[in-house]
Amino acid sequence: TPLPSPPTTPREDRHLRLNVSGMIFETWESTLNRYPNTLLGDPVRRETFYCPDRDEYFFDRHRPSFEGIFLFYQRDKKATADKPGKMEKPLSVPVDIFYAEMKFFDIDEAVIKQCLEEEWYSLEEDPYAELPTREPQRSIWLLFDYPESSLWAKIIAVFSVSMIFLSIAVFCVGTMPGFDVDPLDSAMFSNGTMLDKLDRAYEDHLFGVETACIIWFCFELAIRFYASPNKCSFMKDIMNIFDIVAIVPFFVDFFMIVGVSKLEKGSSTSVFVRVLRLFRIFRILKLSRHVKGLQVLGKALFESIGSFILLSFFLCVSMTLFGSVLYFAEPNDSNGWNSIPGTFWYIIVTMTTVGYGDVYPSSLGGKLIGGVTVVCGIMTLSMPSPAIVTNFNKAWEMSKNVIATQDKNEAPSMG
Amino acid sequence: TPLPSPPTTPREDRHLRLNVSGMIFETWESTLNRYPNTLLGDPVRRETFYCPDRDEYFFDRHRPSFEGIFLFYQRDKKATADKPGKMEKPLSVPVDIFYAEMKFFDIDEAVIKQCLEEEWYSLEEDPYAELPTREPQRSIWLLFDYPESSLWAKIIAVFSVSMIFLSIAVFCVGTMPGFDVDPLDSAMFSNGTMLDKLDRAYEDHLFGVETACIIWFCFELAIRFYASPNKCSFMKDIMNIFDIVAIVPFFVDFFMIVGVSKLEKGSSTSVFVRVLRLFRIFRILKLSRHVKGLQVLGKALFESIGSFILLSFFLCVSMTLFGSVLYFAEPNDSNGWNSIPGTFWYIIVTMTTVGYGDVYPSSLGGKLIGGVTVVCGIMTLSMPSPAIVTNFNKAWEMSKNVIATQDKNEAPSMG
Amino acid sequence: TPLPSPPTTPREDRHLRLNVSGMIFETWESTLNRYPNTLLGDPVRRETFYCPDRDEYFFDRHRPSFEGIFLFYQRDKKATADKPGKMEKPLSVPVDIFYAEMKFFDIDEAVIKQCLEEEWYSLEEDPYAELPTREPQRSIWLLFDYPESSLWAKIIAVFSVSMIFLSIAVFCVGTMPGFDVDPLDSAMFSNGTMLDKLDRAYEDHLFGVETACIIWFCFELAIRFYASPNKCSFMKDIMNIFDIVAIVPFFVDFFMIVGVSKLEKGSSTSVFVRVLRLFRIFRILKLSRHVKGLQVLGKALFESIGSFILLSFFLCVSMTLFGSVLYFAEPNDSNGWNSIPGTFWYIIVTMTTVGYGDVYPSSLGGKLIGGVTVVCGIMTLSMPSPAIVTNFNKAWEMSKNVIATQDKNEAPSMG
Amino acid sequence: TPLPSPPTTPREDRHLRLNVSGMIFETWESTLNRYPNTLLGDPVRRETFYCPDRDEYFFDRHRPSFEGIFLFYQRDKKATADKPGKMEKPLSVPVDIFYAEMKFFDIDEAVIKQCLEEEWYSLEEDPYAELPTREPQRSIWLLFDYPESSLWAKIIAVFSVSMIFLSIAVFCVGTMPGFDVDPLDSAMFSNGTMLDKLDRAYEDHLFGVETACIIWFCFELAIRFYASPNKCSFMKDIMNIFDIVAIVPFFVDFFMIVGVSKLEKGSSTSVFVRVLRLFRIFRILKLSRHVKGLQVLGKALFESIGSFILLSFFLCVSMTLFGSVLYFAEPNDSNGWNSIPGTFWYIIVTMTTVGYGDVYPSSLGGKLIGGVTVVCGIMTLSMPSPAIVTNFNKAWEMSKNVIATQDKNEAPSMG
Ligand SMILES: [K+]
Ligand SMILES: [K+]
Repeated sequence: TPLPSPPTTPREDRHLRLNVSGMIFETWESTLNRYPNTLLGDPVRRETFYCPDRDEYFFDRHRPSFEGIFLFYQRDKKATADKPGKMEKPLSVPVDIFYAEMKFFDIDEAVIKQCLEEEWYSLEEDPYAELPTREPQRSIWLLFDYPESSLWAKIIAVFSVSMIFLSIAVFCVGTMPGFDVDPLDSAMFSNGTMLDKLDRAYEDHLFGVETACIIWFCFELAIRFYASPNKCSFMKDIMNIFDIVAIVPFFVDFFMIVGVSKLEKGSSTSVFVRVLRLFRIFRILKLSRHVKGLQVLGKALFESIGSFILLSFFLCVSMTLFGSVLYFAEPNDSNGWNSIPGTFWYIIVTMTTVGYGDVYPSSLGGKLIGGVTVVCGIMTLSMPSPAIVTNFNKAWEMSKNVIATQDKNEAPSMG
Repeated sequence: TPLPSPPTTPREDRHLRLNVSGMIFETWESTLNRYPNTLLGDPVRRETFYCPDRDEYFFDRHRPSFEGIFLFYQRDKKATADKPGKMEKPLSVPVDIFYAEMKFFDIDEAVIKQCLEEEWYSLEEDPYAELPTREPQRSIWLLFDYPESSLWAKIIAVFSVSMIFLSIAVFCVGTMPGFDVDPLDSAMFSNGTMLDKLDRAYEDHLFGVETACIIWFCFELAIRFYASPNKCSFMKDIMNIFDIVAIVPFFVDFFMIVGVSKLEKGSSTSVFVRVLRLFRIFRILKLSRHVKGLQVLGKALFESIGSFILLSFFLCVSMTLFGSVLYFAEPNDSNGWNSIPGTFWYIIVTMTTVGYGDVYPSSLGGKLIGGVTVVCGIMTLSMPSPAIVTNFNKAWEMSKNVIATQDKNEAPSMG
Repeated sequence: TPLPSPPTTPREDRHLRLNVSGMIFETWESTLNRYPNTLLGDPVRRETFYCPDRDEYFFDRHRPSFEGIFLFYQRDKKATADKPGKMEKPLSVPVDIFYAEMKFFDIDEAVIKQCLEEEWYSLEEDPYAELPTREPQRSIWLLFDYPESSLWAKIIAVFSVSMIFLSIAVFCVGTMPGFDVDPLDSAMFSNGTMLDKLDRAYEDHLFGVETACIIWFCFELAIRFYASPNKCSFMKDIMNIFDIVAIVPFFVDFFMIVGVSKLEKGSSTSVFVRVLRLFRIFRILKLSRHVKGLQVLGKALFESIGSFILLSFFLCVSMTLFGSVLYFAEPNDSNGWNSIPGTFWYIIVTMTTVGYGDVYPSSLGGKLIGGVTVVCGIMTLSMPSPAIVTNFNKAWEMSKNVIATQDKNEAPSMG
Repeated sequence: TPLPSPPTTPREDRHLRLNVSGMIFETWESTLNRYPNTLLGDPVRRETFYCPDRDEYFFDRHRPSFEGIFLFYQRDKKATADKPGKMEKPLSVPVDIFYAEMKFFDIDEAVIKQCLEEEWYSLEEDPYAELPTREPQRSIWLLFDYPESSLWAKIIAVFSVSMIFLSIAVFCVGTMPGFDVDPLDSAMFSNGTMLDKLDRAYEDHLFGVETACIIWFCFELAIRFYASPNKCSFMKDIMNIFDIVAIVPFFVDFFMIVGVSKLEKGSSTSVFVRVLRLFRIFRILKLSRHVKGLQVLGKALFESIGSFILLSFFLCVSMTLFGSVLYFAEPNDSNGWNSIPGTFWYIIVTMTTVGYGDVYPSSLGGKLIGGVTVVCGIMTLSMPSPAIVTNFNKAWEMSKNVIATQDKNEAPSMG
């Protein structure tokens, strides 16, 4: 992004003098005219600020900010109004001041937005911009997706969160001794009709609560789909996909109860059911719709994938390196270190400084290598973590740093 | 907070020129006049600095600081003298210099205070501002609340801290074998009169020391309440509430000894007494009156509550997620992992890298998930901690960064 | 590096005035003329920017950047065009802007490069600069060393990485029970000819896979050596040395199989073979040719050697100090702490907070010292790690922060 | 530190104009004259830079630096040449540039030094400034205290470090089984003369090596004391005190061997000898004379004492708080938690995330409190550590950031 070189015939170009609260900026007219839609680039609009007695344009504006706005005009000779260059906030200027200046000088909206994003700021968007236009969709959508829009919406949100917690509790408690009666097993011993089987299944109380939760989840999903202003983007929303995935395992269970006559333990169907039930844990991700912190964490983790992969790769390389050295140092150990992969668990546990104590070196050489491993582990693991912390901070700041563009929006009235 | 747009008829407004040690600032007169109580905003006061031969106001003041003070006038068109805008210190200016400049230009006290607070600075307050006016309250208050005011006050403070340490020591030692004679038990076997019971209780030496401590605490609290300049704010002070809570358990014990004839082990009264005794640990919080570091820690922890909740929530979500995956990977383990809640302890111990070693995975799948858990734990736990460290630093700096407003206050003489 | 003092007869020197977009810089002509090869230092070239009506040189360039470029002329009186002074980027200027300005004012290439390096930036180098000139070397070199140059090159790169992973897997799996048949042992029991022995060795399937990997490594190394544009720098490249070291152990094994008739367990030859086999782990370093993250880690670790040595030294001193105190506090312990060196393992495990739990203090004194040890360990170990994190960040940033010097290079077409 | 208010009769004071490379500074003459020993404050010296045609003083110097130097004159009205104000480097100026500017404007040495110290810089001191003046002291002092002064001095330094390592090794090895023959015990069974006893003691080989080391240490200390230019500061130097303390235990041992006829195990004399022997570990501190890293660590630890005390205090408070809650939650545990002090070890081990696993909670309540403890521990312990890291960095930087004041000093030639 080179700056403009002087015009080939400089004396033909006009020399402009800008006085920003006493600080003087001078440039060629052609430099400003590159962006004719802005205040400075438009010869007519800037004339308002012209002081003929001094032959200069006077602006009673923030001087340090103008250093950045001036650079926007100067840099990037190839940039045009259609494809503008980059705007960078000077280091020492607060973001809100610079935003006000950019608005005053009428910089392009896209340029402003990209500039704010680099400062971990975002522009406030009208939350009620994308409401369905027709009734009753509009009212329902407000009720289910905008908890702050009315008291009823708030009640529904609280109820929805409670149902999520309840279903997670059922999921966890259902594995505890005394509660771990599999409704499938109960149903199986009934040789009767479909209804008999269901009857037996519902004698298991947890299965009843589970069904109640699922009915609510289905109802919520269905009515939100009906009310959604845009069915296509609704289907693509990751939150709604979590909703669907969290429901599926129940229905597979349900059809198994109704349809299957006998399920042998350890059979492949049984394993399939087990794994499928694990998907019920996706319900915890349903919480992210309601808890901002989880969304921020998710975003931070997503943007840190590179760091995680790097970290895992470092761990694997270290594991192989230290593991094989350790194997050759303590080969005939009673620690189960009779092979290199057998030492991997020790290396992980040591590098992360967890140190369960289920395995540890006992020979002098093994202790020496163990000591080196732990020091290397502390150092290696500390390397990519600042990047992850930064990503979290960025996501967190951006969710807070919202610049108000207009006066507070009123919640639209219902129906 | 938009900056002022040019006056509708700019040429009617007067153009002012300020020369701050050679740096020129120009603005419209109306911009400065917005704050008429300040040096610059008052046409009469600023006239002292007018140089007629150059038609400018000359100030032999710090130039970089003035960039910030000038912005205070420029920004926030809607601000008035009654509801002033925000003052922001330029990044590169030291706080004490900027404070001197703000005082010179006679900025509103409230604006200065809020500006300093953002820089983690506070203005020195007269510690002797709120003394009781009458004697002997005034002398007593100085004696008990201002250790630096006299030698006797210092002695009382040291004695008070010693009594706190003594009572904590009694509390801890009283649970050790050989010292754990419950005065209630001693008293109970005496079927005699109230005095007999007390006599038996006091044969337990620790109960005697305990009583001595409590007498001092009560005396101190009572006399400080008597001397306090404002009874209402005294009752609301969190430190005094700690004092009261730390005393209560003793009196319950005392009345039990005197009144109750028999206390069955495991009965609900016994449990109540046990829990109540736990409140004696509040004595340690009495220390915070005397130790500045504890106050800073308390303030930092209080301001970090959001981060703590977030962290706990992350931990809970991770616990459920990893716990359920682990349960399905190692269900029939001898680790007591026969349910999802049973794995929670393992997940916590692993994510915080404590790793007691009481439970650890033994299957390949379990080890894999354990490894992922610990890496995720290190990353997740490191995310909100910078915020907590920042809060601590802020609280710590503010307790040190005190700008002196006047010459050192003399300790008021007593009586 | 002192700044220039005024010329002995100042009035004889010419006073130059530079106007950089309205910011005025003044200096003596001799100050600029110190670097006659630059735009400002050459009286002829700078004349293009002269405005006779104002008697100044006008540049429509970035003002804050010029503050840095101006300092380059001012400082270091002894510097000459041949031995130029140091260029430093002003804190608040983005690197790419400053680079453009340095290019505009035609600063020496070496000065630019050294300035960018301090900002953790590097100039883009033409990756195809050092291709062999003759065919078929040129095509082969592109094929093996430039994965992005063609589809076939990409396939070869993927295949090469796969072979590395395969050989590492064979190395690790070959130590697991059931797979740990030593091809040497197999061969030994065959008393037949060389071919018989080899035949027996190849009945061990892993040895076959190993041989296949080695054949590929040898082929790759040989053909790359044949095609390399500079044999000498090829031999000195650390990556190629890794390649050679990773191959050697196989051939020793191979010649042992063919030549040795009997290898006694525990003999010195057997130990030599064992240690040599460990060198096969160098194959993992072959990955660094293909994975940028490993190169960055390697560079960071290399530059952190000082910090590592410091850290190790601190650990050793702490180990001796705390170890001896602990020995005198708990001398007759059943922990194996019957000597000072015997406590070293405990001290390391404690200071790094691993805490396997194989040894721990049991007396009161030992616990007290253990507590102090762990707090000191946390503090001591946290001291040099910021330096290591910084080194990693620097290496990482430099591998990303590449300033484009020309338009994108096209991959040269193949012969 | 308020800035100067305008002179009471401003128009009588002279208005000075300083042109620093084109940047204009204006001030009252009285502001500059406050420091008459500096270049700017002396009316005669500054006249050299006066340009009569423009009525200004022109300096071809660094502009951003002058902003800081100008502030030095402006601030602190009460400062005088004898008691000068504070000089602060502007944030964005490199230290070496600012140092050159301060020297040019002839600022007071003490002001420069204090300014550099705040930037973690120190001025190079002539290492050979304090040599003894007479021979042979001068030669000996160079030989023993300036390893870089000659080859023989280097050899002596290496030998001295080797002797330290040897004596530490003897100290550690001497506690290992097989080597732990107490020379006192050997000597005691000899009922013969003093020489017989010594003879027996020297049959223990380690005692011989020990004696050799001590002889060297004594010789070194004695000859250095003889050669030292200032006996008083020699005695006060902490390094020499370490030397003496490291020698004392041997002589006590020696006199015990010679004088004591019988030493009963477990007697108070025996305990005294044991504790005294522990002081031999001070030898490791003798290393700090030769290893710069240890000095830096020592300085950093010394300056972090406040943070350490704070941290220990936090740990103690947390220990008492969590320990007592834990005691009431799990009172009848088999963990040895039958008292509050009994839980302290668990709390420390948990808060520091060491987690040996010798004790861990088993009840639900205990696990809950354990989880809270570890999270609080991670947070609490992370709070003061940035201060310690900063102290270490500061000490480390100051040992490296040395500004050269003159050309490289030659090592003085020997006698
Ligand atoms: K641990
Ligand atoms: K552990």
